[in-house]
Amino acid sequence: MSPRNAFYAQSGGVTAVINASACGVIETAREHGERIGKVFAGKSGILGALREELIDTSHDSDADIALLRFTPGGAFGSCRYKLASYEDNAREYDRLLEVFRAHDIGFFFYNGGGDSQDTANKVAELGARSDYPITCVGIPKTVDNDLPCTDVCPGFGSVAKYVAVSVQEAALDVASMAETSTKVFILEVMGRHAGWIAAAGALAKVTPDDAPHIILLPEVPFRRDAFLERVRETVQRVGFCVVVASEGARYEDGSFLSESGTVDAFGHAQLGGVAPMLAELVRGELGLKFHWAVADYLQRSARHIASATDVEQAYAVGKAAVELALAGTGGVMVTIERTADDPYSWRTGQAPLAEVANVERTLPPNYISQDGFGITGAALRYLRPLIAGEDYPEYVGGLPRYARLKNELTLKKLPPFDP
Amino acid sequence: MSPRNAFYAQSGGVTAVINASACGVIETAREHGERIGKVFAGKSGILGALREELIDTSHDSDADIALLRFTPGGAFGSCRYKLASYEDNAREYDRLLEVFRAHDIGFFFYNGGGDSQDTANKVAELGARSDYPITCVGIPKTVDNDLPCTDVCPGFGSVAKYVAVSVQEAALDVASMAETSTKVFILEVMGRHAGWIAAAGALAKVTPDDAPHIILLPEVPFRRDAFLERVRETVQRVGFCVVVASEGARYEDGSFLSESGTVDAFGHAQLGGVAPMLAELVRGELGLKFHWAVADYLQRSARHIASATDVEQAYAVGKAAVELALAGTGGVMVTIERTADDPYSWRTGQAPLAEVANVERTLPPNYISQDGFGITGAALRYLRPLIAGEDYPEYVGGLPRYARLKNELTLKKLPPFDP
Repeated sequence: MSPRNAFYAQSGGVTAVINASACGVIETAREHGERIGKVFAGKSGILGALREELIDTSHDSDADIALLRFTPGGAFGSCRYKLASYEDNAREYDRLLEVFRAHDIGFFFYNGGGDSQDTANKVAELGARSDYPITCVGIPKTVDNDLPCTDVCPGFGSVAKYVAVSVQEAALDVASMAETSTKVFILEVMGRHAGWIAAAGALAKVTPDDAPHIILLPEVPFRRDAFLERVRETVQRVGFCVVVASEGARYEDGSFLSESGTVDAFGHAQLGGVAPMLAELVRGELGLKFHWAVADYLQRSARHIASATDVEQAYAVGKAAVELALAGTGGVMVTIERTADDPYSWRTGQAPLAEVANVERTLPPNYISQDGFGITGAALRYLRPLIAGEDYPEYVGGLPRYARLKNELTLKKLPPFDP
Repeated sequence: MSPRNAFYAQSGGVTAVINASACGVIETAREHGERIGKVFAGKSGILGALREELIDTSHDSDADIALLRFTPGGAFGSCRYKLASYEDNAREYDRLLEVFRAHDIGFFFYNGGGDSQDTANKVAELGARSDYPITCVGIPKTVDNDLPCTDVCPGFGSVAKYVAVSVQEAALDVASMAETSTKVFILEVMGRHAGWIAAAGALAKVTPDDAPHIILLPEVPFRRDAFLERVRETVQRVGFCVVVASEGARYEDGSFLSESGTVDAFGHAQLGGVAPMLAELVRGELGLKFHWAVADYLQRSARHIASATDVEQAYAVGKAAVELALAGTGGVMVTIERTADDPYSWRTGQAPLAEVANVERTLPPNYISQDGFGITGAALRYLRPLIAGEDYPEYVGGLPRYARLKNELTLKKLPPFDP
């Protein structure tokens, strides 16, 4: 059996460790040269396949590929692009088959979240339906930690660590200043639909009065008066109050706090910002001095404070994807299975892509504290091991050394195609 | 000569390394037990002296004091409190003398920025004017890097490193996504009056088209059209655009961008946020998808990514302050003197408090690029060594191990006083 080529692509919002998965895929493929020829990386995700923009990773040295493990962002470009159903857009599927054929692609690895696993599933179905032999394996990735069937999503542990460390640090700052200055600090974190990232802020708490004092989750409708009362009471008791707010925090009716009616000078709705909105509420209603921060992309790209556990798992799911494909197992996503909480142990597993695609896992009710402003011991048990360990990149002149790949496209063999 | 006690306090906005200076003071004082008795730390800065709230640091073990070097925030509490002139508030000065006498305080160390050095200067003058023997030494600290007479202010190098690393990381994220998603990313950083922190973003740039593509400094009046044109042109050429904006960015007339007219639903002026303001401008005028982050306290408390150079200097200025005082030198602030750029070398020095107090050092014109959107080679030569080296705290269970001091107050000997 002569070796066939592999296609690998990154999809959706990138993370601090998605390149560690790429590293796992490429290094493992290189170990199996008798079965896998080249690894083509899609330039900007599935678009790279549709446009026949295939990055030939064989031009990059082993050393450069190894550096991917330490490099945040998506080294080959990611995309937000969802394949329509076969019925609605057969043209794109036909194109994919053409490209796969032209470049003898026998393995398809798609690295992303819920939408991306849907794409992987559609390509797997395409392979099954057509006479073209291709093995499709999904590789999980999302800071939001909202994929089903897996204990955790690579990318999440590092954001969780970033948020927990940042809350601890900022809380020490606020505690120092509270006597004569800032009394309320609000940190806005990601998680539009699920509160996993905001929940991770709770890891910063060592004693009961430690920050964060309030966590606002998308799963719990925002109660304005209860929130204000909790802020007031915390400042009175502790001297200051630290709030971690999910960008997805919302009212009972489902509308986001971040859309709650602020307008700019031109009368446009003010975009974004749960933190400034809450800060304004605290100032207006309680008259307390505040500061707020919005971590945005900093949190999901913070490779410098990545969780070693997360990096290891991100690499492992890439490696396992290749091994599954070589064993002939397609139509699945690699998963992380937890085998024990403490001491923590885990292994990779697999789940059918059809069960993963488009399902969103939010915080289970037993992870949310009764007052709705925090999380439970069960949630802490779940979260704690995910931030364990540090995995620092090498630094040169004060800055991390990242991979700078060649990203050379392989020669096109087909006419252009406009997705 | 029997030993006399020392007073040490932290003042103004805290930093990731002000406790390293505290560590330098206390450890050095402990080495000189024959001359220095106890080190009393003011609870909440100079307020601690006025209220006779003196933390007796002798209750903390050497190991706990050593941990201060790795702990962000102000371990004894800081304050924003400026002493009026002697003429205007003799009552406070008389009280200070009373407290110093009651606790046999012969050394006064005040750790802060411009306002705080003014306080140190006033206490030094008080000592000189009265018959009370006290040696006063200022210890520099400020993330804003705006103190005169010193090459750099401890606290700045670590913020500079945080900003440079964060810009590199976020830029890799944006670069991955730009094809189908975010094209403009705006990071707001501190520096209300001086652009040093924003300037440090430029350290992220390795090749000319690397991020940051635009830096907005308080020293350069904001030109709306030139800014928008530069964003547009950068997105066209590079595919995306990363902006680092100082919170102090302002218009020609001196008004801050952050005050520029956005109002909330109640008609209140919207507080803060250069980044959201610029984002809205980019969206409205160029129709580009954007993200923005406001680092706020996260940047100045980020001990996890502190510059080793900065930590070393923060410790050194604390140590030097004690040594100067023991040599009988008062009325000065410790400084950092640069003796070479590359390889970088430095030593501590001193400057008269009267020359330091209330002077603000902004970016010199030759550090600002001709187009006003970046910095020069001279600025880079200045900045580069300040972020060199990493100095990681120890981690336990995924989180940094910080000092938790006892902060036991010594018994009061005087009637209460209300500053």
